[in-house]
Amino acid sequence: MRILTGDTPTGKLHLGHYVGSLENRLNLQTDHECYYLLANKHAFTTNADNPQQIRQNTLDVALDWLSVGLDPDKCSMLIQSEVPAIDELTFYFAMLLPFNRVMKNPTLKSEIRMKNLGDTYPFGFPLYSVGQTADILAFRPDVVPVGKDQLPHLEMTREVARRFNQLYCGVAPETPDSEHLAAGGLFPVIDALLGRVERLVGTTGPGEDGELAKMSKSLKNHILLSDSPEAVQKAVMKMYTDPNRIRATDPGTVEGNPLWIFHETFNPDKAWVAEHEDLYRQGKVGDVDMKRKLVEVINDFLDPIRQRRLTFETRPDTVIDILKVGTAKANEVANATLDAAKRAMKQDYFSQ
Amino acid sequence: MRILTGDTPTGKLHLGHYVGSLENRLNLQTDHECYYLLANKHAFTTNADNPQQIRQNTLDVALDWLSVGLDPDKCSMLIQSEVPAIDELTFYFAMLLPFNRVMKNPTLKSEIRMKNLGDTYPFGFPLYSVGQTADILAFRPDVVPVGKDQLPHLEMTREVARRFNQLYCGVAPETPDSEHLAAGGLFPVIDALLGRVERLVGTTGPGEDGELAKMSKSLKNHILLSDSPEAVQKAVMKMYTDPNRIRATDPGTVEGNPLWIFHETFNPDKAWVAEHEDLYRQGKVGDVDMKRKLVEVINDFLDPIRQRRLTFETRPDTVIDILKVGTAKANEVANATLDAAKRAMKQDYFSQ
Repeated sequence: MRILTGDTPTGKLHLGHYVGSLENRLNLQTDHECYYLLANKHAFTTNADNPQQIRQNTLDVALDWLSVGLDPDKCSMLIQSEVPAIDELTFYFAMLLPFNRVMKNPTLKSEIRMKNLGDTYPFGFPLYSVGQTADILAFRPDVVPVGKDQLPHLEMTREVARRFNQLYCGVAPETPDSEHLAAGGLFPVIDALLGRVERLVGTTGPGEDGELAKMSKSLKNHILLSDSPEAVQKAVMKMYTDPNRIRATDPGTVEGNPLWIFHETFNPDKAWVAEHEDLYRQGKVGDVDMKRKLVEVINDFLDPIRQRRLTFETRPDTVIDILKVGTAKANEVANATLDAAKRAMKQDYFSQ
Repeated sequence: MRILTGDTPTGKLHLGHYVGSLENRLNLQTDHECYYLLANKHAFTTNADNPQQIRQNTLDVALDWLSVGLDPDKCSMLIQSEVPAIDELTFYFAMLLPFNRVMKNPTLKSEIRMKNLGDTYPFGFPLYSVGQTADILAFRPDVVPVGKDQLPHLEMTREVARRFNQLYCGVAPETPDSEHLAAGGLFPVIDALLGRVERLVGTTGPGEDGELAKMSKSLKNHILLSDSPEAVQKAVMKMYTDPNRIRATDPGTVEGNPLWIFHETFNPDKAWVAEHEDLYRQGKVGDVDMKRKLVEVINDFLDPIRQRRLTFETRPDTVIDILKVGTAKANEVANATLDAAKRAMKQDYFSQ
């Protein structure tokens, strides 16, 4: 089974990325052929005027990957801009997607809103969602681990695969998704694999809409995988909990309370969590004590990640070499896909 | 001086292409470094469901080029889809162009209208106009010979060059276009070279708007460079002339009369044309005789083209080899541009 997934390097990764996708990648690398993509070209959609920052973010995310335990002996980590087949396929795939279909992608529309892009976004912004279909299909993976917000992009990827297979590989329109390859299609119609925790909340409570906001660097409600023990302590001790609880003896609400969401997500001692949630409901344990415990839990979780980071942080050339090897392996796969796609589209002028 | 231009292969070329651009290319190849691009990927904008036709059109246009005398020893003919640096640059350039700027391109809007694309065009349709900026800038040419309808695309190319140079090469915003390279810019802000006859009329007279229509295959008012002497005779003898002239002895109008536009464009005997235009005005020569003469003139013009066509038509492998050599040379230039662009954008992870 082949896996493709990745991150657009917009900054260092946080706990939300871990439970939303990195954890999946760690599990998958042991017995799958995994390609993990650093989408540095997509970072230009919002950061084109700061290319040095994109470079730094790209290397920071690679370092985050290695720190959490993604293992270059088990998976290929690649830099998007060094895999030309992705760009070549993007152009062909753009021909298979109606313009209105791309512009109506709900993730695209919500990103335009969230990033306050108004009418000023570059053409590259909608293009990146088309490019993502090529990021994925270049590797013809069996499964794509993604966050829930990426499902509209994956649906577009599935449409591209169906259309390509129908137009250029003679796959009949009524063919079920799962049978496209068997029917002679070049591209699989790929399934998503969602993370254990789809949407980890941030540390600072509800956003403007009254709902608990998702952890995100732009909202400054995050805990980075690279945060120091002190930074974790600071973030957790300030964490938003039950706003109606004035005294430690008041009954507390566990549901929708970030304190307990984090315990449930990161505390390996499930029995302790269940027991103390009960006590919290009865007003028998205080927020401060439960937060202190959470500081311990998160720092225990981050400690091995910090250890691995120390190893790689001081060896930037090793990180570059790892990316070089991973990218070379990725190019083999992506070029084979491109060659097959060009054959199917009769654009193989020189190879026949 | 380096030159880049090309054609989207939508079918065999006609007399309008000759005077609009091919003639320029013939003159330029003698003392310039010329790259002539077969834009087969752009052909997918309207023909994605017929890739075999795109392949055939691509080879037909190459044959037209060789037939008119474009000489593989003097210029490089390349296939767009075999130059990955173009696609790679397209993605970066898309980040420098505001979405609304691309969508308001008047050529794009008029193509959508002319081709009756309505709301059904693919995302690749606006993308192709962005891609054209990369087709051009990949070669960093000094001059781009284009048709007048392509000027909005070239203006977009100039904008990309300015923005790239300002953002990534430290060129000051007030720098005049002609001094961008001297100021450290990677890309020239390129001038257009228009053809001798910007807009050759077709053979069948006015369109719906009452104006003489431009020669175009879709209007079926064309004479192909590959037409037989008989086909030329048929098209010319049916040619639209002065609609107010009933008898050969009526005074005729020369201005805006396709018969005389074609004589002025293709008849090398300027004195004969001037003399007979006078006689025509006086009602002393008939349309039929003047058309017979035009048949001769056009067939004389096409005969050497037909001769060269015979040579190449029977040797398809030679044509492919010519394209292979031209594309290899083009890749050297385009890859050097891409490397420099990635260095400027700090995305040279492996080459430092």
